Amino acid sequence: MGNGNRSLSRWEVLKRDYCLDCRVFSVMRKRFRHPVRRQESDFFVLDAPAWVNVIAVTGDLRLVLVRQFRYGTEDFSLEIPGGMADSGEDPVKAGMRELREETGYVGRTATEIGVVHPNPAIQNNRCHLVLIEGARKEKEIDWDSHEELETVILDVEEAFSLAREGGITHSLVIDAFFFFLPHWERIRDGDGG
Amino acid sequence: MGNGNRSLSRWEVLKRDYCLDCRVFSVMRKRFRHPVRRQESDFFVLDAPAWVNVIAVTGDLRLVLVRQFRYGTEDFSLEIPGGMADSGEDPVKAGMRELREETGYVGRTATEIGVVHPNPAIQNNRCHLVLIEGARKEKEIDWDSHEELETVILDVEEAFSLAREGGITHSLVIDAFFFFLPHWERIRDGDGG
Repeated sequence: MGNGNRSLSRWEVLKRDYCLDCRVFSVMRKRFRHPVRRQESDFFVLDAPAWVNVIAVTGDLRLVLVRQFRYGTEDFSLEIPGGMADSGEDPVKAGMRELREETGYVGRTATEIGVVHPNPAIQNNRCHLVLIEGARKEKEIDWDSHEELETVILDVEEAFSLAREGGITHSLVIDAFFFFLPHWERIRDGDGG
Repeated sequence: MGNGNRSLSRWEVLKRDYCLDCRVFSVMRKRFRHPVRRQESDFFVLDAPAWVNVIAVTGDLRLVLVRQFRYGTEDFSLEIPGGMADSGEDPVKAGMRELREETGYVGRTATEIGVVHPNPAIQNNRCHLVLIEGARKEKEIDWDSHEELETVILDVEEAFSLAREGGITHSLVIDAFFFFLPHWERIRDGDGG
C-alpha cells in the first residue's frame, strides 16, 4: 500500500568530500541530486568501518558481557563484546578476535546471526552480529590505556530482563538480543549445539 | 564476576569544543582525563537531539512502516516512522507527531515502551521507542522537498520475519521490535488494549 501513484526516487551522488577525521570514523559531506526535481542538497554522513558485536554463550549457558566507560554518554555501559573489523577482516573472525581481546574468552563455534545498519540516515556501515557458543575463559586480559573493560557473566534470561528494564541500553546490543532470541530457544531446549 | 580487584574509572571531562555543524547533529571534541593515571585524551562525539521511533499498530493489528531513500547507505530503507524530538518536546508527543507527519496516521493510545542509546561510544543522545495503538489514516500526506516517504502496511509477524531475513536493517527499528515483542503477545492474544 503506497502513496497513490508516486514512486520514491533514488538520489544521485555528485561528490563526497571528507570534512573531519574523528579517528574511529570520518565525517563526509555528500552532495546529492534528486533525479526528477534536479534539486541539489548536501548531507553529512559518518564513514566508518564494519562493526561487529558478539553474543558469547558459555558452556553452562550464560552470557559474556563487558562493562566500560563510554565517552559519548559520559557514563558506564553494560554491553556485549564488540568493536571494529579490520580492513578486509571476515566479520565472524573479527567477532572471535574482539571477544578474546576484550574478555579473554574463546569459543567452540562462531556464526553470523544478523547484520544491521547502525544508522542508514547518517552512517554508511554495517554491524555484524555474531553468535559464539561454548565460550570459555582462556586467559586473563590486560586493560589497555584507553580500554578498561570489566567482564560480567549473566544468565541469558537475566540479560534479556535487564535490557527490557533499561539496564542495557546500547542499541546494537538490543539488536543482537533480537536476533539471538530464536537461537537461544534452540540452545536452551538443548539440541546439544 | 569482575577482573580481579581492579575497578573501572569514570573519566573526567575537561572541555567540550564544537568542531562541525552537520545540521541534524554536531561533532564535538571532548577532552577527558583518567582520574587515576592522569592521562588525557581527545574523543569525538556526535551531539544530537533525542530521537523517537514509533511502532504504530492499526485496528486490524497491522504495522505502519515507511520506505525512504537514506543518504548514509545511499539506498532505500524500510523502517518504522520516527525522527527528532523538538527541544523540550515530550517523546511520546514527538512520536505521535512524527507518525502523523510521515504517514498521515493517528492513534488512539501512545506509550513509551523503551529507551536506548543509539551509540554510547560516539553519541550522547537517546532514542525513545513509542507504541501507538489503534492507528488509523486521518489524511493523505504531502512529501516535502527532502522527505519522500512511502507508507507500507505489513502484518506484524511479517515485519518480524522480514527483519530476521535482512529486509529491515535499521538498528533502531530492530530495537523497537525487541521492546514491542511482549506487548505484541498481549495485543495479539486480544486483551482489547
